[in-house]
Amino acid sequence: MVEARLRVIYGDTDQMGVVYYANYFRYFEFARSEYLRAIGGTYRDFEREGAFLPVVEAVCRYRAPARYDDLLVIRTDVTKLRRASLTFEYELVREREERVLCTGSTMHACVSRSGQAIRIPEALSRLLKNAPGPSRVGRELDE
Amino acid sequence: MVEARLRVIYGDTDQMGVVYYANYFRYFEFARSEYLRAIGGTYRDFEREGAFLPVVEAVCRYRAPARYDDLLVIRTDVTKLRRASLTFEYELVREREERVLCTGSTMHACVSRSGQAIRIPEALSRLLKNAPGPSRVGRELDE
Amino acid sequence: MVEARLRVIYGDTDQMGVVYYANYFRYFEFARSEYLRAIGGTYRDFEREGAFLPVVEAVCRYRAPARYDDLLVIRTDVTKLRRASLTFEYELVREREERVLCTGSTMHACVSRSGQAIRIPEALSRLLKNAPGPSRVGRELDE
Amino acid sequence: MVEARLRVIYGDTDQMGVVYYANYFRYFEFARSEYLRAIGGTYRDFEREGAFLPVVEAVCRYRAPARYDDLLVIRTDVTKLRRASLTFEYELVREREERVLCTGSTMHACVSRSGQAIRIPEALSRLLKNAPGPSRVGRELDE
Repeated sequence: MVEARLRVIYGDTDQMGVVYYANYFRYFEFARSEYLRAIGGTYRDFEREGAFLPVVEAVCRYRAPARYDDLLVIRTDVTKLRRASLTFEYELVREREERVLCTGSTMHACVSRSGQAIRIPEALSRLLKNAPGPSRVGRELDE
Repeated sequence: MVEARLRVIYGDTDQMGVVYYANYFRYFEFARSEYLRAIGGTYRDFEREGAFLPVVEAVCRYRAPARYDDLLVIRTDVTKLRRASLTFEYELVREREERVLCTGSTMHACVSRSGQAIRIPEALSRLLKNAPGPSRVGRELDE
Repeated sequence: MVEARLRVIYGDTDQMGVVYYANYFRYFEFARSEYLRAIGGTYRDFEREGAFLPVVEAVCRYRAPARYDDLLVIRTDVTKLRRASLTFEYELVREREERVLCTGSTMHACVSRSGQAIRIPEALSRLLKNAPGPSRVGRELDE
Repeated sequence: MVEARLRVIYGDTDQMGVVYYANYFRYFEFARSEYLRAIGGTYRDFEREGAFLPVVEAVCRYRAPARYDDLLVIRTDVTKLRRASLTFEYELVREREERVLCTGSTMHACVSRSGQAIRIPEALSRLLKNAPGPSRVGRELDE
């Protein structure tokens, strides 16, 4: 599990005075980018080597709103690692607070530049399996 | 079922050359706004009368990408109408094409300005039940 | 001068209850896309033929706020047409209202796919010079 | 002068493979928020006390593109401080690079919750005048 921190800007809020629902998916993207950096790779490099991870399904469940200037912590983990797809899960809290504001997941296919399904690159799957902490990927892989 | 039309702008795309995944949720919001207008109300008016419909769950399944300058058609319907919540479902295609690019749903709670759960306003539920066409709301209500 | 119409969505607003200042530049982009379509071309096609128009300067002056669900009219014109650059100007009002909510401009270089400055394609400059209505491009070119 | 750091996400890019021009204004907003935090206040608190700083003019000059995953540094300063308005200026570079990618400015009115022009709060103008470093505000005020 990796934590990424992010400050809510004015432009992320809507006239309800809270973060607009679509923007949490931007936060999730930021968080999975930071996840890959934390375990030793970058999504930019995987793309350069020809492996893209477009989202095939995205889900967010909203429990309590985040607000302007909140310092958010997004906890991210890879919970499924298949031959040609993987799933990230996210949990979002305010810094130093317990309450979960929202949870979400994104499932990604692995495709080539031309959009053909390909295997997750060996370099990436190795990083994911060796990710520090109580990785849930391992458990999934054992099943 | 109501159809809303929308042109993809450059700012909606990302460096993959396709619409960024979070932006479909902006399209869904546009579509449900147009849905309410089409059946005779506006979300703006429901808010003014003190009924807000924050999203409690959002889902999108991506099948094929939308691209810059595409004229999109978003087909929207209310598929669940409960005492204090309702669900919109969406289907997105390119104008004059059959292929569904993505599908999604948003579940909404009905709350007061202060965030308390309240009943869906009578005016709104009446409009939804009388929505023209093969409304799925009716079927759900019969169950 | 070409008019484009656009509905403000919730996601465009911020917690002040008005359209977030950066989003007017999204509206301007929509408007210049529609401008090109109205005079007989599309920006998508110019790109396909290898001519890109990145923004080199953008300005917006905000006089009065646009709000959720407003139907906006963006009046767009090309006011300068040089060898390798052009300038769009914008004026934004609410449908059926006189008051100008904001004005703005974007200056664009014309570049090849690799980023080299190139002449505005003949096809585009011809469309701009023949644009219907009291085109200001003509006056600029006469000077 | 205050520096704020920010990572470009995928959602900030467009199909040109660079940051979409409107998103720099989001970065500027982030930067001025961090500026206020750095000198001892927060914009959130000024709002709570009834002083709002809507943008009345925004300008950006684009020299070279920022790209996905770039770590950007936005240098921000207040360059004009008037009775009821102030101006921020911005300069954006990549971390550890000299080249300026873009420069910009935002002029802000100071208004009450109801939109009336008011004086810049004493607490804010004091912080701005005492901002550490070679503040340009002082020079402006001397003139």
